Amino acid sequence: MTSLRLRDADSCRYDLVSLGEVMLRLDPGEGRVRTTRTFRVSEGGGEYNVARALRRVFGLRTAIVTALADNEVGRLVEDCMLTGGVDTSLVRWVPYDGVGRAVRNGLNFTERGFGVRGALGVSDRGHSAASQMKPGDVDWDHLFGAEGVRWLHTGGIFAGLSASSAAVVAEATAAARRYGTVVSYDVNYRPSLDNSDISLPMADVLLGVRDVRKHPDSVVVATTSRRVVSASRNDFGAVAWSPSTGMLKAADRPGLEVLDRVGSGDSFASGLIFGLLSGYPLQVALEYGAAHGALTMTTPGDTSMATAAEVVALAEGAGASVRR
Amino acid sequence: MTSLRLRDADSCRYDLVSLGEVMLRLDPGEGRVRTTRTFRVSEGGGEYNVARALRRVFGLRTAIVTALADNEVGRLVEDCMLTGGVDTSLVRWVPYDGVGRAVRNGLNFTERGFGVRGALGVSDRGHSAASQMKPGDVDWDHLFGAEGVRWLHTGGIFAGLSASSAAVVAEATAAARRYGTVVSYDVNYRPSLDNSDISLPMADVLLGVRDVRKHPDSVVVATTSRRVVSASRNDFGAVAWSPSTGMLKAADRPGLEVLDRVGSGDSFASGLIFGLLSGYPLQVALEYGAAHGALTMTTPGDTSMATAAEVVALAEGAGASVRR
Amino acid sequence: MTSLRLRDADSCRYDLVSLGEVMLRLDPGEGRVRTTRTFRVSEGGGEYNVARALRRVFGLRTAIVTALADNEVGRLVEDCMLTGGVDTSLVRWVPYDGVGRAVRNGLNFTERGFGVRGALGVSDRGHSAASQMKPGDVDWDHLFGAEGVRWLHTGGIFAGLSASSAAVVAEATAAARRYGTVVSYDVNYRPSLDNSDISLPMADVLLGVRDVRKHPDSVVVATTSRRVVSASRNDFGAVAWSPSTGMLKAADRPGLEVLDRVGSGDSFASGLIFGLLSGYPLQVALEYGAAHGALTMTTPGDTSMATAAEVVALAEGAGASVRR
Amino acid sequence: MTSLRLRDADSCRYDLVSLGEVMLRLDPGEGRVRTTRTFRVSEGGGEYNVARALRRVFGLRTAIVTALADNEVGRLVEDCMLTGGVDTSLVRWVPYDGVGRAVRNGLNFTERGFGVRGALGVSDRGHSAASQMKPGDVDWDHLFGAEGVRWLHTGGIFAGLSASSAAVVAEATAAARRYGTVVSYDVNYRPSLDNSDISLPMADVLLGVRDVRKHPDSVVVATTSRRVVSASRNDFGAVAWSPSTGMLKAADRPGLEVLDRVGSGDSFASGLIFGLLSGYPLQVALEYGAAHGALTMTTPGDTSMATAAEVVALAEGAGASVRR
Amino acid sequence: MTSLRLRDADSCRYDLVSLGEVMLRLDPGEGRVRTTRTFRVSEGGGEYNVARALRRVFGLRTAIVTALADNEVGRLVEDCMLTGGVDTSLVRWVPYDGVGRAVRNGLNFTERGFGVRGALGVSDRGHSAASQMKPGDVDWDHLFGAEGVRWLHTGGIFAGLSASSAAVVAEATAAARRYGTVVSYDVNYRPSLDNSDISLPMADVLLGVRDVRKHPDSVVVATTSRRVVSASRNDFGAVAWSPSTGMLKAADRPGLEVLDRVGSGDSFASGLIFGLLSGYPLQVALEYGAAHGALTMTTPGDTSMATAAEVVALAEGAGASVRR
Amino acid sequence: MTSLRLRDADSCRYDLVSLGEVMLRLDPGEGRVRTTRTFRVSEGGGEYNVARALRRVFGLRTAIVTALADNEVGRLVEDCMLTGGVDTSLVRWVPYDGVGRAVRNGLNFTERGFGVRGALGVSDRGHSAASQMKPGDVDWDHLFGAEGVRWLHTGGIFAGLSASSAAVVAEATAAARRYGTVVSYDVNYRPSLDNSDISLPMADVLLGVRDVRKHPDSVVVATTSRRVVSASRNDFGAVAWSPSTGMLKAADRPGLEVLDRVGSGDSFASGLIFGLLSGYPLQVALEYGAAHGALTMTTPGDTSMATAAEVVALAEGAGASVRR
Repeated sequence: MTSLRLRDADSCRYDLVSLGEVMLRLDPGEGRVRTTRTFRVSEGGGEYNVARALRRVFGLRTAIVTALADNEVGRLVEDCMLTGGVDTSLVRWVPYDGVGRAVRNGLNFTERGFGVRGALGVSDRGHSAASQMKPGDVDWDHLFGAEGVRWLHTGGIFAGLSASSAAVVAEATAAARRYGTVVSYDVNYRPSLDNSDISLPMADVLLGVRDVRKHPDSVVVATTSRRVVSASRNDFGAVAWSPSTGMLKAADRPGLEVLDRVGSGDSFASGLIFGLLSGYPLQVALEYGAAHGALTMTTPGDTSMATAAEVVALAEGAGASVRR
Repeated sequence: MTSLRLRDADSCRYDLVSLGEVMLRLDPGEGRVRTTRTFRVSEGGGEYNVARALRRVFGLRTAIVTALADNEVGRLVEDCMLTGGVDTSLVRWVPYDGVGRAVRNGLNFTERGFGVRGALGVSDRGHSAASQMKPGDVDWDHLFGAEGVRWLHTGGIFAGLSASSAAVVAEATAAARRYGTVVSYDVNYRPSLDNSDISLPMADVLLGVRDVRKHPDSVVVATTSRRVVSASRNDFGAVAWSPSTGMLKAADRPGLEVLDRVGSGDSFASGLIFGLLSGYPLQVALEYGAAHGALTMTTPGDTSMATAAEVVALAEGAGASVRR
Repeated sequence: MTSLRLRDADSCRYDLVSLGEVMLRLDPGEGRVRTTRTFRVSEGGGEYNVARALRRVFGLRTAIVTALADNEVGRLVEDCMLTGGVDTSLVRWVPYDGVGRAVRNGLNFTERGFGVRGALGVSDRGHSAASQMKPGDVDWDHLFGAEGVRWLHTGGIFAGLSASSAAVVAEATAAARRYGTVVSYDVNYRPSLDNSDISLPMADVLLGVRDVRKHPDSVVVATTSRRVVSASRNDFGAVAWSPSTGMLKAADRPGLEVLDRVGSGDSFASGLIFGLLSGYPLQVALEYGAAHGALTMTTPGDTSMATAAEVVALAEGAGASVRR
Repeated sequence: MTSLRLRDADSCRYDLVSLGEVMLRLDPGEGRVRTTRTFRVSEGGGEYNVARALRRVFGLRTAIVTALADNEVGRLVEDCMLTGGVDTSLVRWVPYDGVGRAVRNGLNFTERGFGVRGALGVSDRGHSAASQMKPGDVDWDHLFGAEGVRWLHTGGIFAGLSASSAAVVAEATAAARRYGTVVSYDVNYRPSLDNSDISLPMADVLLGVRDVRKHPDSVVVATTSRRVVSASRNDFGAVAWSPSTGMLKAADRPGLEVLDRVGSGDSFASGLIFGLLSGYPLQVALEYGAAHGALTMTTPGDTSMATAAEVVALAEGAGASVRR
Repeated sequence: MTSLRLRDADSCRYDLVSLGEVMLRLDPGEGRVRTTRTFRVSEGGGEYNVARALRRVFGLRTAIVTALADNEVGRLVEDCMLTGGVDTSLVRWVPYDGVGRAVRNGLNFTERGFGVRGALGVSDRGHSAASQMKPGDVDWDHLFGAEGVRWLHTGGIFAGLSASSAAVVAEATAAARRYGTVVSYDVNYRPSLDNSDISLPMADVLLGVRDVRKHPDSVVVATTSRRVVSASRNDFGAVAWSPSTGMLKAADRPGLEVLDRVGSGDSFASGLIFGLLSGYPLQVALEYGAAHGALTMTTPGDTSMATAAEVVALAEGAGASVRR
Repeated sequence: MTSLRLRDADSCRYDLVSLGEVMLRLDPGEGRVRTTRTFRVSEGGGEYNVARALRRVFGLRTAIVTALADNEVGRLVEDCMLTGGVDTSLVRWVPYDGVGRAVRNGLNFTERGFGVRGALGVSDRGHSAASQMKPGDVDWDHLFGAEGVRWLHTGGIFAGLSASSAAVVAEATAAARRYGTVVSYDVNYRPSLDNSDISLPMADVLLGVRDVRKHPDSVVVATTSRRVVSASRNDFGAVAWSPSTGMLKAADRPGLEVLDRVGSGDSFASGLIFGLLSGYPLQVALEYGAAHGALTMTTPGDTSMATAAEVVALAEGAGASVRR
């Protein structure tokens, strides 16, 4: 158990609500975006993926706060989100102009890489409905107050979309704090950006930072660590820090075989949050996060296809023998 | 033969150059955009499709003047255009900002329909590189003068993208006329828009108009006619008018079986232009256009997979017996 | 408006709840079950399909009462049902024995047919969890009383599974009547069975009967009529009867092009129920039912991929022109 | 019953043996050979298809006499033939030279056509092992004598491969006659060839001729008749003649919906031969042939996926209603 | 050579007959059962796989004794078995009741796993026709006596289906012994079951046991050994014991790359049996078994796609260079 | 910089022209040729692949000199070559006889292998149009003189097709030398053939030899080195020699993960030639070759899907981290 104070589940409609953009991911399978003639599609988004996994993998009640342009593409994203089990009633549907000049849906063309060829993604999300969200769009008091939410998750991908999306993050986290809702924020630090330390919102749980020891104001700070041996093989680990535990380390997974690495950081976050929401010690939550991140890399797409039982078993050291 | 005056082929690098947008078409096959999990992709665009068919079906030398954002999606469009055989050296590559805020590539999610369910398309082409083309981007004098072009094709889809694209159309057609290059313009008239009569550029050959008799300044005016019995069955015909021939009519094709109707108007245009470029009488060119439009509806995608021999045979009345 | 008395939407958690089996449909596409090497899968079930369409096509709040064996196949059915948007919280999960001796999930191998080759299906649903449901499994008083349901839909496919499933139907319909919930029952009459007149439960709306005039105790009686010209072409119509309107007839659709006819009767039911739930006159509801049934035959799978707007437009006489 | 004299089934190892070439068919599905990027493969060959259908559709014991080059492609053809249930022990395996200079396996790239676009095939079978078969390769006396065969089927496609294949046909039919084995020969007459009347072998049953009344030496003469309305719709019928019955006509099937017409003539032959082998009157056998030919056009590939029950039901006038 | 006494091939119709269940395997490819929308299908069954490989890989004459319900699914299993080349004339076809209450066909939903995610299978084979086989169903005296069989293979998967299937195993092995047919029995020991030592039938060759030294009554005892480094990488070996040779060990294959491990134990058995049937020393047979088991893990599905030449080459130490 | 003397780019229409055969490659994906039911197709050919990569990966102007039979298969090869961007105007189209007796198109059935199962290919290219090319077919003086070509690439695969193809190689290289065009020749040495030292044409750059130090007459000699750990994992390196540099070695890549190894030697050649054409030192060119060869093994098909930027980055030591 950490010192996080969680609202009572019975008094809350949702265990977790994510605030972020949901994009349509277009995936060329074992080929490349630039030469393919077919795409598989699924939905994905850093903050959303956490809500999806908490619902589908861990069985919690979650919702997504986002905006979508109301056209066939947006409805396809909704179709995918329904599969994900995430409550879509908080989605803001913005009328489409027939062309995509005023508002669009975000797209994400990403190939998985193989061996010496790294994974590669192109975002096509300018002018997305999510990036145009602004303070006042969402009635947070109704959501956190009347309905009740135990945990709010958001992060740096959404906050970085635009000035107004950053303002929505600030508005949402402030409202969450007023109602005792725990706030987690995934910086999604990437060395190429070095955006880890600028203007973070107050977050009880801070994820995806460069150095977990540099954020003493948070109750829990955690992140994955990865060495890319090749696109098909990563050394994968995770660390967490809290005032009471100090620095903790998850079991290392050297030479982890990778099918599609995208979304593993989000799965780390959801595994960890599941552990914390369930009242487990931080070390256990950290192992759940690391195991869930590892499992997500064994299936295509951004989102996790694992089960809670598989996460727990892997965290507890089970092997990959056939079950039948 | 019509009274079109054509530049000599030997003095021209290109038989035809199209000016227009090229989009990535995403096609869910026999399913629907809003519920699919896979898309086939190909390239398409009203003006471009004409250049593609003249190259691949009819064996002429063609090029496309357009602009694309330089990212993986743009390179995929290029990959498709290469398959189409169209010279891509006149494509203007615009640097991508990593997000799609400043410039993007146009996308077109289109399903083909079946029976009582009509075909349905969503354009996602706001802020596309093509829509941001502006006068001065292309050295028309070099193209029409130094290199030499027999025919310029453009139309209302591209002209309607933005004020600047309309200005590029005006600039291009004026330049073409200076060098004796024949100009065709496909209005792409649709009853829902009724945009057929506003501010057409001077065009020798005017296509896709509502009423072919209303444009006496053009040398040839032509259009298809279609009654949608169902998405899978159309009555399909075509008419043309010229000062010397008056009104002409192609063979009617009642109850034509349709797999994917998108692109049939463009194939009508390319068949007709092929006939005119080859010096055939307007009636023959018209039959080529109608036959090519009909054949295009028997294959998936916007673009034609027919051969010139098939077009000619169908125009001359051949049936659909097996050839082996 | 008919004389159906509907509970107020605000006092009900669900607009409609279906009681029935949900099977995994395995579809060989354009091939045949007996020679295929691949199947597409989706979920389906006569009663369930109605709840699914009312949620996904018409935007109402629906749930399914059923039972599933808790194994990977059952979880795949759940994955599909989530895509369908139907509330799955009333699903009864039965422990699996690892073999399928005690309890299983129903499977449905169905091919669509083409031309002179009729559609063909094989049910493999012996010992299914749904067929083993029995009175007392569901707390109907809680559902209809505490939660509130405006409409209960069930039918002869589920009632015919076993003596106990028939008893559950009787229990559910009796409970529904106690709470003022409208009851519809789809006999799913097929000439080969002639099971239309035996032991029907009391139903306000009776569907899929042989002769709509023979059930004067119901408020509305309706059914589709179909002449199978070929597997690819049906003459399709529908009739309804109510005491106040007498016999009504929907617009005939002769020669309707059919891709996959399975589920069209269920879509007729959901279109009609939508009309009645919305308070439209029976003639309008009947047209919605017929139009929705027709649209469902244009896509693969049991379930509808149409939109409410498309249903309304087709019911009002729109053609199948391309929309873009 | 016709006046065909059939050997007793108990004294024969095979009900029918076909002599002909088996090719690998490469099928681009709904696309075209010249632009596809994927092929489905199956095996096919005019004479072989008859043996396959008699085994898989009608349950008889059949074998194929042919030759294949012993490489991965030949083994793939074998894999397909095993699926077809035809006994492959009479296949002559010829060593491969690693290049295909001396001997190869026949290939057949065929697309199915749609609407106004006809089916189209390219044979690539020069130097095939089958075309190089020569008299003496097969021990016919052992086959017809020691093992016993009730019926030998061969035809003009194989006989036309080369002078030596024609000699093998002559050798085989002569041997068959010595042992009382009925001989059928499918001319595979096509108007473009007009090869129907030249040097036919003595055949008890003559198929695929231009005019069934011109071959009085045969016991049965039969052929299909077809009018190609479009590639997707044919008027389809069949006629037969025998000395005792005179001219007979099968039920006409106007406007038959066609998915893939290739192989329908062979299926006509197998349905007819099944009827004759079973001792049915010629009119019944003719109806089986016509019904089987019609059913084969409803599935992809050269070979039939029908069942004997479906053939009989269609021949007796059943419709295409769903069976479930 | 071992001291196995084999019947003469010329006096036997079959080299090997397997007794066991054949299921339809449904494989989601690189995805998971619980989230897939497509399955590839093939046939499989522990005992059957041995007969299939001996026929298709090693060229022997084999048959399967099993039972199937006579519906479209059973016919699909037959279609797959024909591809496998195994003689299906001994299959007992049981009438289907249209629902699957009395009798069904066994299904096997299995995913292959990847990296830290293990392979996972769900059997759905309750009430299968095979599990309902009972003594007296098969005329063993005719099979082993009149027709002649050199080797009978069966095992613990089939014996464990039901009391009556165990009785059929006892009946069959006793009959085999009467006629001098060698009997092999694959325990299919799995640590989770620990069923290795209970009530084994008398078997000349005993496979898949926990400890090869504990079965001194058998002529040969053998098993694979495996350490699951990950689902994609196994250390793979095999051991055998016979009275004359004592304990033997096959070449170890550490870090073997695995695509789909299911069926490797059966392929070990078939490779070993091939060696023994061919009269090779046990060490050679053991190496064939180990090599064949390893090769089977490089292709999808339960069944082997290897060739005898590849098995021999790998057993003799060949590498994985390209052959062309 | 090496001492290669290159013609000026401005005076040449092509940077490189390849002389060789282009075959249709049929690829069963993760399955095997002998058991597949689907093939993906693409074009490939040792010499051609170099021209393709120089155009599509490195942006140079390239053409192919080859011959194709003019049928649907040849047109499919053309469709693929257009995607490859290679100028097809020098292709010689030979009339097809409808059967493939006189002339055909080369086919190449190749599977990629996995783990202990090696890659495996079957060429079916006897009587191909390319193998029948003969001196005099091509006007080399026009090509090298009037049009201008900086570099001619050909090799031992084409030279080995026939006596006449070898003569065409001699004719072409002699002509190239007359016009100052650099000549490279890829021996494509394979240990099983040991054809490396016989009758090589005079080549400035000699590739794919057994021992780079044995060819002092060439300006540059280079080859890859490979140890096949398994089909999925190779140790991969490369060496080059020139009089001025002596022996050079590229960075070793031990344990390189391989998806499809076919074409890696050709990609080595194109990367090296790009470096040399760009005037880089031999060590840099060698690293480009090795990096390009490595990248090609990460995608399906013979041809490279890499970008020049990726080649350079890998050559300079970049890892396989995700780029997004």
